[in-house]
Amino acid sequence: MLRKWHLFTPGPVPVHPKVLLAGAEPTPHHRLPEFSAILNQIREDLKYLFQTARPVFFFASSGTGAMEAAVANLFSPGEKVLVVRGGKFGERWGEIAEAYGLSPVYLDVEWGEAVQPEAVGEALKRYPEVKGILVQAHETSTGVKHPVRELAEIARKEEVLLVVDAISALGVYPLPMDEWGLDAVVAGSQKSLALPPGLSFLALSERAWKRVEGRANVRYYFDLRREWKAYQKETTAYTPAVSLLLSLRESLKHIRETGLERLFAHYSLLSGACRAGVEALGLRLFSKAPCEALTIVELPSEVEGGQLTKLLREKYGVILAGGQGKLKGRVVRITHMGSQTPLEVVLALSALEIGLSELGYPVKMGAGVTQALEYIKEKAKEEI
Amino acid sequence: MLRKWHLFTPGPVPVHPKVLLAGAEPTPHHRLPEFSAILNQIREDLKYLFQTARPVFFFASSGTGAMEAAVANLFSPGEKVLVVRGGKFGERWGEIAEAYGLSPVYLDVEWGEAVQPEAVGEALKRYPEVKGILVQAHETSTGVKHPVRELAEIARKEEVLLVVDAISALGVYPLPMDEWGLDAVVAGSQKSLALPPGLSFLALSERAWKRVEGRANVRYYFDLRREWKAYQKETTAYTPAVSLLLSLRESLKHIRETGLERLFAHYSLLSGACRAGVEALGLRLFSKAPCEALTIVELPSEVEGGQLTKLLREKYGVILAGGQGKLKGRVVRITHMGSQTPLEVVLALSALEIGLSELGYPVKMGAGVTQALEYIKEKAKEEI
Repeated sequence: MLRKWHLFTPGPVPVHPKVLLAGAEPTPHHRLPEFSAILNQIREDLKYLFQTARPVFFFASSGTGAMEAAVANLFSPGEKVLVVRGGKFGERWGEIAEAYGLSPVYLDVEWGEAVQPEAVGEALKRYPEVKGILVQAHETSTGVKHPVRELAEIARKEEVLLVVDAISALGVYPLPMDEWGLDAVVAGSQKSLALPPGLSFLALSERAWKRVEGRANVRYYFDLRREWKAYQKETTAYTPAVSLLLSLRESLKHIRETGLERLFAHYSLLSGACRAGVEALGLRLFSKAPCEALTIVELPSEVEGGQLTKLLREKYGVILAGGQGKLKGRVVRITHMGSQTPLEVVLALSALEIGLSELGYPVKMGAGVTQALEYIKEKAKEEI
Repeated sequence: MLRKWHLFTPGPVPVHPKVLLAGAEPTPHHRLPEFSAILNQIREDLKYLFQTARPVFFFASSGTGAMEAAVANLFSPGEKVLVVRGGKFGERWGEIAEAYGLSPVYLDVEWGEAVQPEAVGEALKRYPEVKGILVQAHETSTGVKHPVRELAEIARKEEVLLVVDAISALGVYPLPMDEWGLDAVVAGSQKSLALPPGLSFLALSERAWKRVEGRANVRYYFDLRREWKAYQKETTAYTPAVSLLLSLRESLKHIRETGLERLFAHYSLLSGACRAGVEALGLRLFSKAPCEALTIVELPSEVEGGQLTKLLREKYGVILAGGQGKLKGRVVRITHMGSQTPLEVVLALSALEIGLSELGYPVKMGAGVTQALEYIKEKAKEEI
């Protein structure tokens, strides 16, 4: 009872108690008209979140499932896709594409850096048979925001599809699907929707939808043709994850009441405070194009990341994420998604400080926390 | 969804999710043998918490109910009791005693100070017909620990009962009932037991119990004779607060697993870090004999307490308690009871700092937080 988890990982994220409780309501039957009303509400609110007039599909799966759905429904075996690969999730696009027999062309990007739109333009010139670009809006392993808006313009000009993994981006900062012309947007439940894991989302532009029917790929569970039929009948193709959908309804209701603008301002405040704190500690931010969802802190070379996260977890109940892939041990990741308050960012920074200090690194205790407080005081003039 | 309460009030306190969930279990019927088994477990574990071999009674009531039960069952109208009055809850003892027609003799103590055992001894000499001393172990309105152990020695020597309101003390620091010879110990659920409000507790020494039968007071709901009969039949006199008892069982289980020693060390760490932080801010602690349950911060004269608590509550979701009675507006109270971690003390201090700063008081931002972190690092060498 003396322990309590302070969760700062990029999924799962802290779930608001009201959202959790909604998921604990008695399970309604998913084939009754009452449930269709719930589905309709969810589907309307998802359009608001995605900023689209298009239908948003969901699956009982992790985010990877919706990534796979995008590949399976939009491309046929042998077709070329351009994969922006600057982190673990860029690699995942490639793995899925290969599993489905596509011919991915890789545009490798230094970890920590955003892709250059010009490089994408050049690659498309070099490989004119490319049908789509697979990219992350926010690459969770490197904390980088890729310039999705610019990529969408290029994609439109070159008549290829822009497929965006927005799993850790949607709802965090502006990504208006219709306005920017994103062709496929993938999201997951355990990020800014602040739900437990288990739901994924996929919306397609009209242009993208035209490719769905003719694709030669094997697909069943993730077949959007089946889902669309069910959607029109106000139901789902397969048994949906009902308790998660009840939580989702609650979360979307709050998002709608809050408004996207305030939601984005909230993440901007949290991430800004965290970055200010990290820099005041004399530590470096790993990402050259940092995202509001996540702050990645480069660790001093004498500190091993695994040791730090273990100490904080076991002694203080604070869970920071370590690095992935080639960043393992070299960074810690502090997330701002989910139910988090500005002063919890201060808590995360205080954990970082005390942890580094206990491991013998000569951190100036209190410096990061102080700077974060100054930042919050300065920025949060109005209601937050 | 952007809001979340950070609760630092001395009741209610943050309830651990596992304890809350236990209270959400389907309500068992309270007259079945299965429920008697639950009661028996609870009653055994309460003895551990009270450090007594005597039965511990509980009521569906707030803590005040068990205070009333102590008065109603131990004293008759017209009998004299010595009331130690150094805060709002000392006053409450007096009000209850008067309501029951006792003749309270008041020993007034400066708010913020502990009673002198010698003063109690002298009062007993001056009023030899006094039957009992009514005192707080921890006076929640002033953050003061009264010297209960010394008072127990005097009470024994003078052959009067020592009746201790331990509502915000039991489980926070050592108060071994049998070893110290406390005659009545009162507790409440929404304090260190970390439950929601709604349960109160009362245990009597053998010596105290001898007075219960012959008392001439009106009593029904709080009549311990009825409760003792029911206790022996493994039930309760009236319908108990079942969901709270399910939570209580869970909380007591954790307390027993944790052990009182670790529990006390935990509160010592939290309160020590908080006090260190407050002093580093150049602010004064109100209590001259501070308790591990609570830190009371004297506010600078230019800051109005109500404004500060309102700002923190509305803008940052942080709920500090204001002052009570004559301390209204002059102090804020930060509690350490309930489900709280060391880094949440840092969060509370950061709220205090940002709040004072936003109200224009020239606080050295970060100073308190830094000192608290240093304290935690220094003290929390082992597992915490």
